[in-house]
Amino acid sequence: MPVRKIISIDGMGGDHAPRIVVEGLEQFARTNVDFDFLLHGDEAALKPLIEKAPTAAPRITIRHTDKQVAMDAKPSQMLRQGKGTSMWNAIEAVKSGEAIAAVSAGNTGALMALSMFILRKVDGVHRPALVGSWPTHKGVCAMLDLGADIAADAAQLVEFAIMGAAFARAVHGVQNPRVALLNIGEEELKGHESIREGARLMRAANLPIDFRGFIEPDKIGKGDIDVIVTDGFTGNVALKTAEGIARMISDMLKDAFKSGPIAMLGALLVMPALKSFRTKMDPRNTNGGVFLGLNGVVVKSHGGTDNVGFAHAVHVAASMGGSNFRTEVEENLRRLAPVAAAVAPAQQPAK
Amino acid sequence: MPVRKIISIDGMGGDHAPRIVVEGLEQFARTNVDFDFLLHGDEAALKPLIEKAPTAAPRITIRHTDKQVAMDAKPSQMLRQGKGTSMWNAIEAVKSGEAIAAVSAGNTGALMALSMFILRKVDGVHRPALVGSWPTHKGVCAMLDLGADIAADAAQLVEFAIMGAAFARAVHGVQNPRVALLNIGEEELKGHESIREGARLMRAANLPIDFRGFIEPDKIGKGDIDVIVTDGFTGNVALKTAEGIARMISDMLKDAFKSGPIAMLGALLVMPALKSFRTKMDPRNTNGGVFLGLNGVVVKSHGGTDNVGFAHAVHVAASMGGSNFRTEVEENLRRLAPVAAAVAPAQQPAK
Repeated sequence: MPVRKIISIDGMGGDHAPRIVVEGLEQFARTNVDFDFLLHGDEAALKPLIEKAPTAAPRITIRHTDKQVAMDAKPSQMLRQGKGTSMWNAIEAVKSGEAIAAVSAGNTGALMALSMFILRKVDGVHRPALVGSWPTHKGVCAMLDLGADIAADAAQLVEFAIMGAAFARAVHGVQNPRVALLNIGEEELKGHESIREGARLMRAANLPIDFRGFIEPDKIGKGDIDVIVTDGFTGNVALKTAEGIARMISDMLKDAFKSGPIAMLGALLVMPALKSFRTKMDPRNTNGGVFLGLNGVVVKSHGGTDNVGFAHAVHVAASMGGSNFRTEVEENLRRLAPVAAAVAPAQQPAK
Repeated sequence: MPVRKIISIDGMGGDHAPRIVVEGLEQFARTNVDFDFLLHGDEAALKPLIEKAPTAAPRITIRHTDKQVAMDAKPSQMLRQGKGTSMWNAIEAVKSGEAIAAVSAGNTGALMALSMFILRKVDGVHRPALVGSWPTHKGVCAMLDLGADIAADAAQLVEFAIMGAAFARAVHGVQNPRVALLNIGEEELKGHESIREGARLMRAANLPIDFRGFIEPDKIGKGDIDVIVTDGFTGNVALKTAEGIARMISDMLKDAFKSGPIAMLGALLVMPALKSFRTKMDPRNTNGGVFLGLNGVVVKSHGGTDNVGFAHAVHVAASMGGSNFRTEVEENLRRLAPVAAAVAPAQQPAK
């Protein structure tokens, strides 16, 4: 019998919590038998939901708390007052070693601040990074930083590359991830100095990573690169631009499909063929960003997701928690350290 | 009879030149009667094409040259050797005052370098910016800088805002453009210092511009902002991300529509309803970026466009060339100067 692993869950975070949280656990539990759950939140609200989740129920332990983080709470406020909230307790269980990972669909800023405060940064990582999954023609790629911070210097970009490659191996199952730095041209002359220096450092550090140089944002969708590395400002802009365009196109398509009886009939006939397209572009199937670079795994689920999306975030937590991520990152950071130190004085992060 | 205006055209630039250039002029000429064209390029190649363009033909004057800028030419090389090319001569005709604007579908880097060299920057503008049009739910908005340079400090962002607003008025016909700075949050605390300082400067300068603060990239498509201002690196990333996602979605839709007889029938029925969607997302209908901040109008057409796209770029040139753009920009730059000078020492551009 395999060792049972525990995932720590913020039961109260997200627009539709706690309902979609428990439904998501039920969904996840059906196909993942060797995980148990610590569920933090209001017992009175959680119990009736768990009764309707027969697969997950016997594997859930409720850790009651009345307190929760409001979706509009300020991160600084939560650092002072967040103790004992379902989010805080969910992270705390990772720190204590009880759980292999935590998942929350709550307030992003608060989750980031509490995770940093409770788990602290890994030695050798200068900035944590938020990594996410991005659909491509061939499957999915990882992109980081999506906005944990706004800047990154050359050495920090290389740290992101190391963590991103380990993430792609752990969560996307890519044996030998191809890594590239996001830039506005493929030539070595283009882009910010930090990016060009980052590429030189990647090569000099001689890491066991398949580094492919620069990638332009319009090439991401081709799926030839598995890990896209950029600073948090640029990554957040790219992510939100992509979300905006995808939503605009999807809204326009829906309007067109509903615009009259002939179009509706056509849509009905076309729908089965659109299934794989819709699956690929469904944000629920890439839900679950991870704050990398902390002493413990914390997964951020989209606040507005449903049970399917939440189950995917739990899957990300399970993959990360059960992986070699930490050992791999630590080894590569040790390889990087002397090379990065030689590039003294440390470059200032882009402003 | 109205005064006839002349537009200067690089006949040899672009993947399908000179054919699509002449066809584009024909297309434009049919609905725009008071413009004539100076067409720079190889007379032997142009003449037979002009014979097949009956509306444009009597309004075209060929300026023969054997030389042209290769699509893969280095900008620095063109500064030394570009003299006498069709691109150079097209820009030169703007400098001499013969033409109100130039259009080229040639090599972007070379066009930017030659335009800067021949036309020089306007007094008071520190960096030129490339502005383009971006489809939204409600129509179209302007975005700049799309990559003329990689960085912009606070004062330069305000200069972009001034030029972008004048562009939106001249080309998109927006009487009172709403302007916002691209950022990763709407709060004043977020993003790079240059952006936050840019917002303060916009307010302090008291310009006759409807400034709306920050906009996040996923809100662009709503169409509530007419001019999106950002540095060239970020703008280029956003543009290429949007292009990449739109192309990926469009490829997937096409594949789905062709995947079998039932889907094909459905697609046929749905197609008329998709017409406005396809028109809006058709990059030909937003073709034509303008290098703002130079002493003269140069329009960059996409290199791979067809006659419809090229005609749109000529339309942009005609709108800019016939507008109050320059006066309006100069007046606002005069308003900005004392305020920007008070923010001393000048901030360093983001790296």
